[in-house]
Amino acid sequence: MSFPPVASAKPLTVMGAGLVGSLLSLYLARRGHTVEVYERRSDPRRAGADAGRSINLALSDRGWRALEGVGVADAVREVAIPMYGRVMHDAEGNLTHQPYGKPGQAIYSVSRGGLNRRLLELAEAEPNVTVRFQQQCLDVNLRERQLHLRDTTTGHEQQVSFGHLFGTDGAFSAVRGALQKTDRFDYSQSYLEYAYKELTIAPAADGGWQLEKNVLHIWPRGRYMMIALPNLDGSFTCTLFFPFKGEESFETLKTSADVQAFFGRVFPDAVPLMPELVEDFFHNPTASLVTVKCFPWAFSDAVLLLGDASHAIVPFYGQGMNAGFEDCTALDHLMQEHGNNWEAIFEAFQHQRKPNADAIADLAVYNFVEMRDRVADPRFLLQKKVEAKISAQFPDQWLPLYSQVTFSHTPYHEAWANGQRQDAIMARLMPHIQELDDYDRPEVQELVQQEMESRVAVRQ
Amino acid sequence: MSFPPVASAKPLTVMGAGLVGSLLSLYLARRGHTVEVYERRSDPRRAGADAGRSINLALSDRGWRALEGVGVADAVREVAIPMYGRVMHDAEGNLTHQPYGKPGQAIYSVSRGGLNRRLLELAEAEPNVTVRFQQQCLDVNLRERQLHLRDTTTGHEQQVSFGHLFGTDGAFSAVRGALQKTDRFDYSQSYLEYAYKELTIAPAADGGWQLEKNVLHIWPRGRYMMIALPNLDGSFTCTLFFPFKGEESFETLKTSADVQAFFGRVFPDAVPLMPELVEDFFHNPTASLVTVKCFPWAFSDAVLLLGDASHAIVPFYGQGMNAGFEDCTALDHLMQEHGNNWEAIFEAFQHQRKPNADAIADLAVYNFVEMRDRVADPRFLLQKKVEAKISAQFPDQWLPLYSQVTFSHTPYHEAWANGQRQDAIMARLMPHIQELDDYDRPEVQELVQQEMESRVAVRQ
Repeated sequence: MSFPPVASAKPLTVMGAGLVGSLLSLYLARRGHTVEVYERRSDPRRAGADAGRSINLALSDRGWRALEGVGVADAVREVAIPMYGRVMHDAEGNLTHQPYGKPGQAIYSVSRGGLNRRLLELAEAEPNVTVRFQQQCLDVNLRERQLHLRDTTTGHEQQVSFGHLFGTDGAFSAVRGALQKTDRFDYSQSYLEYAYKELTIAPAADGGWQLEKNVLHIWPRGRYMMIALPNLDGSFTCTLFFPFKGEESFETLKTSADVQAFFGRVFPDAVPLMPELVEDFFHNPTASLVTVKCFPWAFSDAVLLLGDASHAIVPFYGQGMNAGFEDCTALDHLMQEHGNNWEAIFEAFQHQRKPNADAIADLAVYNFVEMRDRVADPRFLLQKKVEAKISAQFPDQWLPLYSQVTFSHTPYHEAWANGQRQDAIMARLMPHIQELDDYDRPEVQELVQQEMESRVAVRQ
Repeated sequence: MSFPPVASAKPLTVMGAGLVGSLLSLYLARRGHTVEVYERRSDPRRAGADAGRSINLALSDRGWRALEGVGVADAVREVAIPMYGRVMHDAEGNLTHQPYGKPGQAIYSVSRGGLNRRLLELAEAEPNVTVRFQQQCLDVNLRERQLHLRDTTTGHEQQVSFGHLFGTDGAFSAVRGALQKTDRFDYSQSYLEYAYKELTIAPAADGGWQLEKNVLHIWPRGRYMMIALPNLDGSFTCTLFFPFKGEESFETLKTSADVQAFFGRVFPDAVPLMPELVEDFFHNPTASLVTVKCFPWAFSDAVLLLGDASHAIVPFYGQGMNAGFEDCTALDHLMQEHGNNWEAIFEAFQHQRKPNADAIADLAVYNFVEMRDRVADPRFLLQKKVEAKISAQFPDQWLPLYSQVTFSHTPYHEAWANGQRQDAIMARLMPHIQELDDYDRPEVQELVQQEMESRVAVRQ
């Protein structure tokens, strides 16, 4: 059943014009609605605007599909850098390559600020979208459907009445704050004992890249790690994920000499490429890593939370933005199905998306251990290669978990359940495999066949 | 190492004079400190004061020890009613008895209001304690150590400076609200899909009890239940735990006829004893059931949360008050150990108590299933009897989980770990036992011996 686009009598209201809010506004506008968008920060397209801390992000299939839905994928692709795999740097500077998926499959490094600006331009180019910046949400009166805003430049406060409000105002959402005051609102915020800090690998003198360009670089060190993603200008944005406290921690790196000595010892191949290391280290913020879960996401047909406002996750699966963009795709399908029945749309949305948001939240925490520790283990890398062989041999029955999350549209919670079943099989197979060629030995092949048959049997 | 009581230079400040706050004030005063207590509600000893919703509570060993520590246990015992076990009422009115522990062991029904008033009287009888009522905490400035209070009768607001503030202001703690605004504060609130409503079984005409007095009555009905605890006046306070929504739920009981029909069908033996059933049902609140977890509980040496403010739990293990009282015992031991080193006290307190608070929170949710469903299962009751036999045979090695929680001072988290190990053993034993006498059969005894030996082996 398909409805033609039907405009609401009243404009729709979106609080928050970050990545998800601006993409959502486009989707709403394309379905014929008038959309009023409010954003706390200043216009990121104006000089001097706060560009936010996180400089680049990894875009993967779920994100691309959402961008394609409003016709902006091709434009973004021009400024995105494919990363076909991970390159691990050990403490001696030796490199190990691990592909992310099949040949040609990649995640894409994009500039957060650049992508946000592009989506805002597209949204404002729609005749039925208006965006107002420096409008801070102070409160939401859910029953009266009033949004209480404060202009951060003039201090002027106003009540804006709304019919339907979309809260896309991020991990510390003020719209969610209003839902939190209602009875029986489940809520959790959970911090890792790790902080992150962004650092920079400079471009080469000729403007090229000083490390291999089309990969994600990892310096896995067991309890901590540094990663680097390429930028268009030849630089890499590095992120150090490091404990707040303890023997090796932000707490103990107090002086320039501490920082130099520590980096020189544990990231020796990176230090010569980071001329501004010490400045960056003491200038850039030490930021915390939070997971936010809540439910419900909707208040009748009045308010719906999307993106980080309802499911903020840690960055270790590169899926925060992708999950928020997938929210837009899912909402669009529900608008297609239910027309202007917002109560039905909101209810279906939250019940469809919540298990997926929970799954990717837990996967993201889980992947931190993989990135900072397991990728340095030859047995783990061998297992990944064996998995790739199984997947090639049984393409309809086996897709590695990383590929399901990153290169498929399988709901996250199904991907995770599949991944756990596959992990159990790998735990049984790996004791029989010492090197990749062992996979083709008859007795191993027999085991693999048995596992695949019993797996199919379970599914029937 | 033991310090003599050392008074702080400044008075200590306690926000919240409920059960935990008033007991804590006594403990602080007995250690020589001057204590200023503020409470949002009016003095419960004054006529017309809001007595709160939950009318009686079950006091068990941890609570008694805390009361003994300030010499009030004997006075409370005079107005407490021992309950030696559960009596299950089935839908035909048949009764089944299950003792809680060994002969003589009991949990005690006490009046929440009466206990709170008694503790307040004792606290105010201390020369170095002052209690001020109708003082609402609006905010806490953690760094300036200022408590922002509003007098709810006059509307007058004041800033009270403090050296050390104890937040005992309950599940919706305003003091915790200030901690929640600091970075990296882990917080969760999680609601059950059940509500509770208090109802009343009337005293007999002669002022006696219409049901057996010295037990806790349960009407287990699978997905819901009613319980009843005795009061001194011959009445019982009943609590119905029932879904908010669904086929059988608060949502569907809309009229007097609905209520009469439902109760008459599922609680037929109770209805004749509840003359005010319909009035109570529509007059008394339908209250939600929340679990609150958070961490840290301390902010430097400035603020410490205790009781429900840091660990609100659902009522199904009867341990909410007991856990809060045990906080007071634990804090007292730490004051003994660390004197006036509040930073050391607060730090040790939160790390010692947090795992226990988490364990009893999870146990309380777990016990809901036991109470509303499993106690109606003859196999479950048989298992409890078998466990009692094992415990009698191996008194140093086996204490049923319920007894560890209720009749011991074993830290909650150790009790739960022990309980899980014992559950695993019971799961292996029970298939061999069809009736209680089977326990003494040689082959079962051999199994039991094996299990106990392997258990000891694991512990070594």
